[in-house]
Amino acid sequence: MNRVAVHGVGMSRFGRQPGRDLLALAYEAIAGAFDEAGSDAVDAVWVGTVFGAPGVAQRVLRSLGITEVPIITVENACASGTTAFIEAHEAIRTGRYGRVLALGVEQMSTAFSGPIVPETTDPEGLSGLALPALYGMSAARYLHDGAVTPEQLAAVSVKNRNHAQGNPRAPFRERLTVEEVLASRMIAEPLTLLQCCPTSDGAAAAILAPATGAAGEVTVRATTMRSGRVWDQTSPNVWGHDIVRDATVDVLDAAAIGSIDDIDVFEVHDAFTIGEIVTTEALGIAAPGEGGAAAATGRTALGGDMPVNPSGGLLSRGHPLGATGLAQVAEVTWQLRGQAGSRQVESARLGLVETMGGGVSVLDGNACAMTILEAS
Amino acid sequence: MNRVAVHGVGMSRFGRQPGRDLLALAYEAIAGAFDEAGSDAVDAVWVGTVFGAPGVAQRVLRSLGITEVPIITVENACASGTTAFIEAHEAIRTGRYGRVLALGVEQMSTAFSGPIVPETTDPEGLSGLALPALYGMSAARYLHDGAVTPEQLAAVSVKNRNHAQGNPRAPFRERLTVEEVLASRMIAEPLTLLQCCPTSDGAAAAILAPATGAAGEVTVRATTMRSGRVWDQTSPNVWGHDIVRDATVDVLDAAAIGSIDDIDVFEVHDAFTIGEIVTTEALGIAAPGEGGAAAATGRTALGGDMPVNPSGGLLSRGHPLGATGLAQVAEVTWQLRGQAGSRQVESARLGLVETMGGGVSVLDGNACAMTILEAS
Repeated sequence: MNRVAVHGVGMSRFGRQPGRDLLALAYEAIAGAFDEAGSDAVDAVWVGTVFGAPGVAQRVLRSLGITEVPIITVENACASGTTAFIEAHEAIRTGRYGRVLALGVEQMSTAFSGPIVPETTDPEGLSGLALPALYGMSAARYLHDGAVTPEQLAAVSVKNRNHAQGNPRAPFRERLTVEEVLASRMIAEPLTLLQCCPTSDGAAAAILAPATGAAGEVTVRATTMRSGRVWDQTSPNVWGHDIVRDATVDVLDAAAIGSIDDIDVFEVHDAFTIGEIVTTEALGIAAPGEGGAAAATGRTALGGDMPVNPSGGLLSRGHPLGATGLAQVAEVTWQLRGQAGSRQVESARLGLVETMGGGVSVLDGNACAMTILEAS
Repeated sequence: MNRVAVHGVGMSRFGRQPGRDLLALAYEAIAGAFDEAGSDAVDAVWVGTVFGAPGVAQRVLRSLGITEVPIITVENACASGTTAFIEAHEAIRTGRYGRVLALGVEQMSTAFSGPIVPETTDPEGLSGLALPALYGMSAARYLHDGAVTPEQLAAVSVKNRNHAQGNPRAPFRERLTVEEVLASRMIAEPLTLLQCCPTSDGAAAAILAPATGAAGEVTVRATTMRSGRVWDQTSPNVWGHDIVRDATVDVLDAAAIGSIDDIDVFEVHDAFTIGEIVTTEALGIAAPGEGGAAAATGRTALGGDMPVNPSGGLLSRGHPLGATGLAQVAEVTWQLRGQAGSRQVESARLGLVETMGGGVSVLDGNACAMTILEAS
């Protein structure tokens, strides 16, 4: 089996850009990745997208001159981009292909031109249990249990927007205060507007190939993927907690890493502030009930001992579903190469990407994809 | 690397059934495959669907009690089901997972409740170049070149409907005459209604695991997948010809099979009569310009030396996009096990599945997936 390296990553501009089609977004991301990799040759392509029309991957890639090679579009909810990365990784690891492009692309501002409503044919849909409501329930539960305070929830947005100051690729960079976050419009109680990832369009890409052994090369230490169990009112933990906890065990085991403390930098799924808090606890970065404090006290900030989302996360980049996972991979790759400028985590050698996928309603199930990258 | 066996296959009822949702269709197919495999344990699932809503695979599988394992939905146009099969095969071959479910499912009668029109933002869409028109152009070119006659085109429908007499799973089983086929309503000149696959809903599934070495076991000899080049008015051959020709070279090479003549039974993509004719020529079953004659003279009929579509093909089963490739795999598996009843190809030992994927318009690109199965 091959050791797999990330030979290049790229990102398009993120943010609302309804006038730009998937082709324009994909081109920017792929061109960046080819540029870093020093080559535009690939033997196969995996594409992550959720709302892209059928056949869109072939259309986009053919327009870029990538033809005749297998092109496989994968959908795994919000984890679609990370899934494309993991499938591409597996193809290189096993020698199936020699050089693979993983692409994630999504146009959210046109896909959701109307209100986001769940399907109305199932009980969850009829109850309005879309994802903001689901995360709102998690936050309400945490507040009820005294496991977080409103200020700690808001501190996640403040921290991640602070991080975004150093990230020209994050379109939402205005600094925020806890007061501003809490005073913004209510979306799904207790989550206010500035605690929800903004609508954003974008693409991100990575080129994977066998490791060359070059100094400083970023390689893939381990990957894992899971789907969730049924979650309902009898579940012991909030939605999404257990799948992240179990995937963490899997990926550390696969990587032969004894403790989460050995990871230097994290990009995790902060679609909502409570999401980052639950995730840091499920990952074992913070003890149960301590995730909010970790954000508020700076433990998970740049300069803290467990920096989470130095890019600014989904809260600053937005969340073009298929693109998110590969944008996370791109950030960790830049961090491990020491190319992250003023948001650089010092001496980062191991980085973890976590992407959580939720469906439109609870019954759609969920997914979690993780990967650990390493600087040689 | 493992030798991979098909441990079980299953198919739902096919045909128009707008009142049955994806869950009902998937259940029937999966239950059949589990029954044949003698177990409902799986470590991972690949799902092929084109029009299934995001998250639908998780929802369907969770409702069937399949949770916690990775579930990857793949879209590769009309080849989505075969792509799911090929990805599942790869996971077993490389030892990534021990037992994998490949599922294809599609509800066409609700997905296409209105007229099928291509996207109208590109020149092809504006010109009305949907797939029936594209295949109609192929047929017109063949007629113009004297490479086929109208009666030979119609003979493909007559042959495949004859085959379907023996297939209780084919919903469209009425015998047809050449005259009836030619007299049916014109869809895309020169293709009449009875030369086009009917609208159909359905699901099909396969369980893959390492081969046990049991006598009669059906194993996977080779697989391949390609995407197409740009096709336009300067292309030397009709749409879809070259990708099938090139994939044939790939798959025979990978299988170390010297000649297409060594294959005993074929399930190929007869979405339209001309599709089967072009495919038999591109596969090398018939010489250029002889594909129509092969159907009309019975060479590619049951009892002929190169039997194509003993199941009745897409022309008798309809074409629920994601399900088609796995229905083809199921048929070839039953043929190689000698379980095909009155449509059995005698002493079939090697079978080939070919699925062609076309987008909604020409610019969407195309895909071709092939697999060769073998009876041990």
